[in-house]
Order: sequence, then structure tokens, then C-alpha cells
Amino acid sequence: MQKKIALLGSTGSIGTQTLDVIGRHPDRFRVVALAAGSRIDALVAQAKLFSPAFVSCAKPNDVAALRAALPSSTRVLCGAAGLLTVAAESAADVVVAATEGAVAFDAVFAAVERGMRIAVANKELIVAAGELFVAAAKRSGAQIVPVDSEHSAIFQCLVGESAERIGSIILTASGGPFWDWDAAAIAEASVADALRHPTWRMGTKNTVDSASLMNKGLEVIEASRLFGVPGARIDVLIHRTSVAHGFVVFTDGNVKAQLAAPDMRLPIGYALAYPDRLDDRRRGPALAALGAPEDALGATLAFASPDRERFPCLGLAYEALRRGGTVPAALSAANEIAVAAFVRGEIRFGDIPSVVRSAVDGTPQEPLTLDAVRASDQRARTLARAAVEARSTASAKS
Amino acid sequence: MQKKIALLGSTGSIGTQTLDVIGRHPDRFRVVALAAGSRIDALVAQAKLFSPAFVSCAKPNDVAALRAALPSSTRVLCGAAGLLTVAAESAADVVVAATEGAVAFDAVFAAVERGMRIAVANKELIVAAGELFVAAAKRSGAQIVPVDSEHSAIFQCLVGESAERIGSIILTASGGPFWDWDAAAIAEASVADALRHPTWRMGTKNTVDSASLMNKGLEVIEASRLFGVPGARIDVLIHRTSVAHGFVVFTDGNVKAQLAAPDMRLPIGYALAYPDRLDDRRRGPALAALGAPEDALGATLAFASPDRERFPCLGLAYEALRRGGTVPAALSAANEIAVAAFVRGEIRFGDIPSVVRSAVDGTPQEPLTLDAVRASDQRARTLARAAVEARSTASAKS
Repeated sequence: MQKKIALLGSTGSIGTQTLDVIGRHPDRFRVVALAAGSRIDALVAQAKLFSPAFVSCAKPNDVAALRAALPSSTRVLCGAAGLLTVAAESAADVVVAATEGAVAFDAVFAAVERGMRIAVANKELIVAAGELFVAAAKRSGAQIVPVDSEHSAIFQCLVGESAERIGSIILTASGGPFWDWDAAAIAEASVADALRHPTWRMGTKNTVDSASLMNKGLEVIEASRLFGVPGARIDVLIHRTSVAHGFVVFTDGNVKAQLAAPDMRLPIGYALAYPDRLDDRRRGPALAALGAPEDALGATLAFASPDRERFPCLGLAYEALRRGGTVPAALSAANEIAVAAFVRGEIRFGDIPSVVRSAVDGTPQEPLTLDAVRASDQRARTLARAAVEARSTASAKS
Repeated sequence: MQKKIALLGSTGSIGTQTLDVIGRHPDRFRVVALAAGSRIDALVAQAKLFSPAFVSCAKPNDVAALRAALPSSTRVLCGAAGLLTVAAESAADVVVAATEGAVAFDAVFAAVERGMRIAVANKELIVAAGELFVAAAKRSGAQIVPVDSEHSAIFQCLVGESAERIGSIILTASGGPFWDWDAAAIAEASVADALRHPTWRMGTKNTVDSASLMNKGLEVIEASRLFGVPGARIDVLIHRTSVAHGFVVFTDGNVKAQLAAPDMRLPIGYALAYPDRLDDRRRGPALAALGAPEDALGATLAFASPDRERFPCLGLAYEALRRGGTVPAALSAANEIAVAAFVRGEIRFGDIPSVVRSAVDGTPQEPLTLDAVRASDQRARTLARAAVEARSTASAKS
């Protein structure tokens, strides 16, 4: 039987790769709803190809173009209400949350409250309010299946295992393009430098976050929320080739790992098919199956500890996780502002951690509620914008 | 609640390590029966320490010594009937089959027919008649949990997964002490050389089998039987440090691996505790948890393809698996004879494959039944002894 898929963020990197997976498995999946915030032409093309019942855009201005291009049977929606309908009213078997930032927060939360299965690629949602999502999922019976490759790895290693027997979790990191740069060079790195990711094809924000290791920091918080393991038992290892994505060290000393080619379509396919797996069988040599770089002597997988001094965003994320409450939401929101400012050329790459720091330091210790998360998000954006402003003014003067 | 354990082969390498695990977890396990074929002093000491209800020895001559040394409440048994009682009549929750060769065949088969849980360390049983064991387990509801580190790895990777989604299985091999020797040197290797295993502490036969890669060949057959995967989808990779023990390549391109220090107490503990895990939590650095050799740059795991020309036993095992029927039983039995003859100095290390080959070639294609397996075992031993004899006569003449 075909699974019905609702896709939030269909024109982004994860969204288009999700449709690629669905398109190659028409016997297993059917698109019932698409939502996108930008690239309306691409959204129209997707809707024509997959014939979803619901299509939603972010801006009211785009509604007319969608209506004109799509058959009258397609319900065209817009904005927050549109996202909510796509997520929670589309009768999907799996809601794929592939938006960026916090825009889909309410829509995804509503789907969780209805007990739906959510494939989460939008890690900011889990970082900002993972405890609320997980608690709501426990109440409603919703399943949250991660799409991030590292969390898919941990999730796969934990299938059939008891959470009580997790000793620790290890997430791998490619280390990004600045892994072997000195601190001064990292501080002055250009946008083009930051977008030169060694292994993964991802959206702009994720790629910049990978270069600062903030991506890994956010993933540590996400892993803590999804798997119920404190930050003190989550480690990060640099693994340049992005073949091994995560390890679970069990309490009995056994370790499980997941490996896969660095291709997001693999964890996407897993999240869509779970608890089954797709059948894309390709029988090749064993060394190739490991995906490890091969030479005459064989293949090796190499791991190293990260340098937290040159990559302070990683430590900032651990700090936000330790403080808890709405601090992770502030970290994530401030990071969005800082990355956008860096990409626009308003601050240096080396300013990202200090912009985020200003928001983390300006966030009070407070109980975690949906309202508090939203308020913390807004406050952090304001604080981060002020910090960006101060830095760009300073650099204009110098 | 304590699990009741019956241990067949208690004084061997796996047996003593099993008691080590049990001794460290008295809250979880209790020994109800012990059986051993040799080292009666050690058996007495074990029985005094663990107070099992049943103790069984191989030779009638040893019964009196056991009766004299143990309390009158201990039932002292002997021979095939003793093994059968220990395995099937001891009301154990887990029967650990840690004997060598085929001696415990009937006893373990009886336990499987009764639907008991079997922790199998005695791979020859599964090689010789794995299809019969697995079919009997399906009928009775018995669970067969492997103790071999590689099969424990695959078993752990498959927890919560569907066997239909196995693309292929990769077993790792240390490569043994002759990995980088040339063929002429391997042919003339001494017993002391063969017993110098780089990573594992094991019994003599297993260690010699590791040097010839017959151990890995037997494991390929065992994996095929336990996991229902044909030999064409089971690969072997050389991994000198014995940290990663096995990989499952799923049909969707995702790969799971299991890693652990090369310490048999880990897979033993897993098989005893399954479906739970022990809690021996030791929180250490992430790189150390991977168990990979560390240097200034980090840790690496290296893999290479095996050389089947210098290690013909591996190909012999694949051939036996392809032919099926009672050929694997013949391979395993002939190998026992060949290894024993090598250890006694009667043949060269390089003669082992040809002794085994003579038995494999002398085994007809026939349907697999328990009687046929027993007959094939006996015929193969006779053929192998004749081949040993021919070689030792030839070498005495030359």
C-alpha cells in the first residue's frame, strides 16, 4: 500500500531530494500535500508532477500564480494556516518537516499532537522545543523519525534496543572546510569558502553551520532531545569522509554504528519507509559497501577529536544544552540571524560565535513552554540583530 | 530475576569466560548445570564455586572423583546421556553450547527441540547441521543466539530489522598470524607460529583455524545458516585490529556495524542477557569507545580484501556452502582431524587444506538429515585420517 506523504519545505535541498526518493518509489509513496516558502516556479512544477491535493505557499502574493497554474481540484493555501492544513489536515501517513528555521513550528507541533508520524529534517524545531515535541509525541503516540544523517544513524542503531541501555552516543562530523585552518584564517573566511563543504550537498544555512561546527552543536542538542540522553553522554568525532554517521555505545561495552554514502536520500528513504526499508539492492564489492576511501591496501575509516577552541560554536551548543529551558531556542534563533548576516557580508565568519553568545547570555533561565520558546526565539533574534549591527558598524568604521 | 544457565564445555576457553561473566553478575545469572570433557580438577573447582544442580563429565572414570569432591545434592552425570540431561533436563533459561567439535550435537539438538534458548559458541554444530537446527528452532520456538563475535555482531545489527531487507553480510577477520607471509612460509609454519594470534584469546583449534582462515570459512557457513543468507551475499574483510566484527548492508543502502574490544566476554554477556544488555557502564573518551588504535591524529579502522590463494581454506568453505547437504559437516569434521594432526606435528600447516579437500571431494551430494550428517562426519574423519596418514608417510620417506 502507498504511504501518503505531506512535505513541508518541498523546494529546499531536503524537499527536492525527498521528492526524488518518492519519484523513484511510486509503488510505495504518494504525495498528498506540498508546502514551500520560495521558488514558486519549482513548487508549480512539483505539483504538476506529483498531483498533491494540497499546495501551500508562504506569501499571499503567490496564491494567484499557483491557482492559475494548477488544476482546480488542487486546494491552494497560504501562510501559517496553509502549513497547518498541509501538516495536520492532509491525512498524510508521514509528514516530512523539511522547512528551515522556526517557520513550521506550530504546524509540526499540531501534527505531533494528532499522533502523526513526522520525519524531521528541520533540526531547529527539535533544538528549540524538542522536550515539548517528545512529550507531546508520548501523549499522542506520534512517532518522530529523524532525517538528519547522524540522527538517522543513531535511530537505526537503536531499533530493537532499550533506551536504558544507551551508555553514550557519538555523532560524527565532517569537520567542514575549515577543519585544518588556523583560527585567524577561519575568522576571515569568505562566504564562498564556507560553502565549500567537503562531502555533503545541503542548503546554504546547513553548509555554513557545518563550517562553524554549529551544525554539530545543534545536532548534539537534537540527539539529546530525541534519544533522551544528556549532553554529557553525547560525543562528537571528526570523520572527514562522512561514511560513518553515528555510534551508540551500549552499557555492556558493545558499540553499534551506522554507515552510508553521504547522500541525504538514504536517511530520507529510511524515514519515509520506516519501520520497513526500501529495496534499492545493488550488490557490489564489500569494500565499496563500506563506502570507505579505497587504496591498494584496502579502505580506512578515520576519526579524531574536534578542536573546540577553533570552533567555539560547538561548546556554545553544549552550554545551551546544559542550561536547558529556552536557551537552546535562543542559540538556534541567534545562529539563524548570525549566519544570514555572514552570508550577506555584514559580519565576519569569526563573528558568528560572538553574535550567538550575546543571545545565549541574554536569555534568562525560565521554564519551557511553547510561549516561552516563541518569546525566547524573538528575544534572541533581537539580541543577535543588535550584535550584528554593532559589529558591522564597528567594521565600517575601522 | 536470575536467569538459569546450563553450560556445556565449562572448562574450555569460552566456558571459563562464560563463568567469568556470570560471576560478575550474580544478580542476573545462576549456574544450574555444568558439563566438561576434560580438566576435571577445573570442573570440580567451578562446581564448588557455582553450586550447580547437575555436573557432567565425558569419561565414566571421572565420575567417582566428581562424586567424592562435590556435595551429595549435586547430580553427577556422564557421557552423552549426561550432556543431554544438562542441556535439556536442567530447566535452564539459557543453554550455552561451548563444547568443541560435534560432541554436543544430540544434546543441543534436544534443547532446540524443546524450545529452549541456546547461546551457541560451538560453530561446528551450526556448520554441520545449521539448517536442521534452524528448522527445529522455528518449529519449537527455540532462540539461537550466537556467541561468536562476528555472528553476535550481525545478530545485534539485525535486532529490530527484517531479514528480508538484508542485502549482504560482511564478516571481518583478523587475518591471523600469517596474513602477510608468503605461501611457502605459510606451508611450513610451526604450531607455535599458528598459535600466535594477533588479537583474540581462544582455544587451540580456533586459533589454528584463524591462522588458516578456515575459522572465517566456517563462520561464513554459520552466518548463512543463522541468518538465512546465501554464501554469494556473505563477504569477508580483513580487519587486523578486530574492533569491527561485522556489517549488515541493508537493501536500502544503509549499513550497520557492531564494534567492541576483542574480548569474548562481550558477545558472551550479550548472548546471556539477550534481549536485554548488561550494565557494565564505563564512560571513557569517544575514541577509546571505538576501540580503534589511536595516534596523534586520531583513530583509524582499516579493512582489506582477503587473499584466497594463500588461504585456500576460505574458498573450500564457500565451496562446501554452495554444495550444501552434508558437505559442510564433512568440511568441519575433516578440518578437526587436520588441525589435530597439525598440532601433533603429523602434517605441515600447508597440508591442512588438502586433507580437508580430500574429505570434501569424497562426500556425495545427499539430502540433509541428522543421520546423514552423522554418517558424513564419520566418513569425512576416515577420509581425512587416510589423507593425514598418506602425508605423514610421504614426509617420513622424504
